Amino acid sequence: MLVEKLTLQNPEVEYVGLEECLDRFCGQDVFSPADVPPFDRSAVDGYAVKAADTFGASPTNPVNMKLVGTSYTGMRKDIVPAISSGQAVEIYTGAPVPEGADAVVMAEYCKKTGDGYVEVFRQVHPLQNVSRTGEDFRMGELVVGRGTRIKSWHIGALASLNIVKIPVYKKLHVSVLSTGSELVEPGQPPREDQIVNSSKPMLKSLIQESGCIPVDLGTVEDDVNLVASKIAEGVKLSDIVIVTGGTSIGERDIVPDAVNKAGKPGVVFHGVRIRPAKPTGAGIVEGKPVFMLSGFPVSALIGFQLFVKPVIDMMYSHMGMGPCLVRGRLTRRVANHTASRLFVRVRVEKTLNGFVVEPLMLTGSGLLSTLTKANALLVVPEEVEGYDEGQMVEVQLLQHD
Amino acid sequence: MLVEKLTLQNPEVEYVGLEECLDRFCGQDVFSPADVPPFDRSAVDGYAVKAADTFGASPTNPVNMKLVGTSYTGMRKDIVPAISSGQAVEIYTGAPVPEGADAVVMAEYCKKTGDGYVEVFRQVHPLQNVSRTGEDFRMGELVVGRGTRIKSWHIGALASLNIVKIPVYKKLHVSVLSTGSELVEPGQPPREDQIVNSSKPMLKSLIQESGCIPVDLGTVEDDVNLVASKIAEGVKLSDIVIVTGGTSIGERDIVPDAVNKAGKPGVVFHGVRIRPAKPTGAGIVEGKPVFMLSGFPVSALIGFQLFVKPVIDMMYSHMGMGPCLVRGRLTRRVANHTASRLFVRVRVEKTLNGFVVEPLMLTGSGLLSTLTKANALLVVPEEVEGYDEGQMVEVQLLQHD
Repeated sequence: MLVEKLTLQNPEVEYVGLEECLDRFCGQDVFSPADVPPFDRSAVDGYAVKAADTFGASPTNPVNMKLVGTSYTGMRKDIVPAISSGQAVEIYTGAPVPEGADAVVMAEYCKKTGDGYVEVFRQVHPLQNVSRTGEDFRMGELVVGRGTRIKSWHIGALASLNIVKIPVYKKLHVSVLSTGSELVEPGQPPREDQIVNSSKPMLKSLIQESGCIPVDLGTVEDDVNLVASKIAEGVKLSDIVIVTGGTSIGERDIVPDAVNKAGKPGVVFHGVRIRPAKPTGAGIVEGKPVFMLSGFPVSALIGFQLFVKPVIDMMYSHMGMGPCLVRGRLTRRVANHTASRLFVRVRVEKTLNGFVVEPLMLTGSGLLSTLTKANALLVVPEEVEGYDEGQMVEVQLLQHD
Repeated sequence: MLVEKLTLQNPEVEYVGLEECLDRFCGQDVFSPADVPPFDRSAVDGYAVKAADTFGASPTNPVNMKLVGTSYTGMRKDIVPAISSGQAVEIYTGAPVPEGADAVVMAEYCKKTGDGYVEVFRQVHPLQNVSRTGEDFRMGELVVGRGTRIKSWHIGALASLNIVKIPVYKKLHVSVLSTGSELVEPGQPPREDQIVNSSKPMLKSLIQESGCIPVDLGTVEDDVNLVASKIAEGVKLSDIVIVTGGTSIGERDIVPDAVNKAGKPGVVFHGVRIRPAKPTGAGIVEGKPVFMLSGFPVSALIGFQLFVKPVIDMMYSHMGMGPCLVRGRLTRRVANHTASRLFVRVRVEKTLNGFVVEPLMLTGSGLLSTLTKANALLVVPEEVEGYDEGQMVEVQLLQHD
């Protein structure tokens, strides 16, 4: 609903060095500028031979071959001695395969006899243990696709191709506005009628983890005009705006009004059939997505993961593998009387009988301890009335590194 | 073997702000300084009542209750009107439960009649929808344990307790020395007999991802004295030293000699029964671990994950959940003739019939494309001769965010 009304655009592309691209999103398909390897090279340490010379070789019937030189890693191919039938060249992993050779026998199946010969105990077939020209990357082949979140092995592959300026999407800016006259910022002593604004620092870290830059729009009281003008400011400063608080579907619910006041078309949806995070909503102002999340941290977290993160990924053209799933046996019945999709915080433990899944008793959307004690989420779909004790369920791990 | 001979010490603890602690390792158990919530509060929007008053309430038999006020989130408990039998207070999520009330009926099961009364259609039991004092965190309860890698929800929990200086382990320094006269650094044009040093930037990003600071010891040629003096330098500058290259078990294998020369006890093991990464080794110099990884990037990556990462985690007192595992059906037979533990790079795809696991044909340890094309690793234990086509296997996902 939101996404159909939004025209999501990729951020601009910038070029960064190999040491700055970790966890950035690739902004453009990167192709191999050359064949890698540029020549046939050995995949193992051993002896380069003509495969036909080794046919029938065994520990009881070794083939004796004359050593005519060595091919070291990094050696120029034209100075590696060529071989003819009955000859072998000692060769290191990555070194060029000599002219005339078509296979490499691993060192452990050979024995130097000390008189300039080597005994070969095992036969090899043509091309065995040879990395062929272009086998790693052919010239013009895709190395890292647009939208990939760049990890260490991509960095290794890019470096091996000597690609040192990497096109990545500029980081999106995501601003966060807290609403609620009861809030004090962390570090301030709260009065008895005040609550520490814990959702703000949590959301900022979620924004960072998602590859974006958080912009703090501050904290304002529940005043429609004030909130609307802050949203308008956020839309100018950033690509996505998040407003927390004041969105429960009740009388003090001024955030949707403020979104409508900030610009057209305003609110697209408000209220979803999930628990917690039911009062989550979203709108569009000046063509940019504005999310309304609960002020309660657990709801804000789930609202972020379900609604904000997918939009961020879409803007970066990123297709993730989704959360890590684990199957385990429920220790207690989980009931769903709500006709909503339930996100139950659970603790998964590995036992000798497989994983067990312990639902936490606590259910309040304000209870962050359910997340620090939990290590996974069990999703109960709206059409399911519950899961029984002992039933196998699939849960999403919250953290695994 | 290595770990028994090492006396691994935790780094010193430093205190950082809420916005700097994401992905850092908690350096000390953090306990709750107070009960949270400090008073009984509502877990939902609705009406605070005496549970006994609602017994028997249903849509056909609603109970009519007199509204005596409202409890807003952030309100001081002492100014919330108390209730007696037959009365109700409108209440918002997180707001204090009034004196006299012991349960909250969700708003959707109630209807204001407009004359100062509310009809209640559903009965509640005592404490239903009430978050009790200390239910989230009791005073003195563990909030974030030592060794935890701090994520957004820990940040939310710490903020809600107004803990704004977080004890974290100082980042470990891990230095990387490349050896090999054939290497040029990325960005330099390689001659035909040269190879771009792709392992260095890859290892630096792995070190960063593991929560450490990479220290670049440069690249030196295969000279025992030079390498030994660089290792000695690395041991002074950092907590862990990694040396790449020159470790295949052959004639030019000077790194183990250099480790022995750099200090006592020197090499602890060299050569492991795994493919790739067979020539991996480790030693101890001046009480610090020194790892010898292959110069080939795929082997270096696997050597890092299997040997270096666990030592880093131990120094941070961190117990991870391990890699994300997925079960899928093999598209082709995977053979293991090596009597080694095999790390086969595979591509996992989700299909309507579950996951399928496609082993990549390429096997060379130098072939980074096997990692950019793969998205998972299949581990074949040394005692297993292979897995058949169609067999269900468990693989480790490389990336899933």
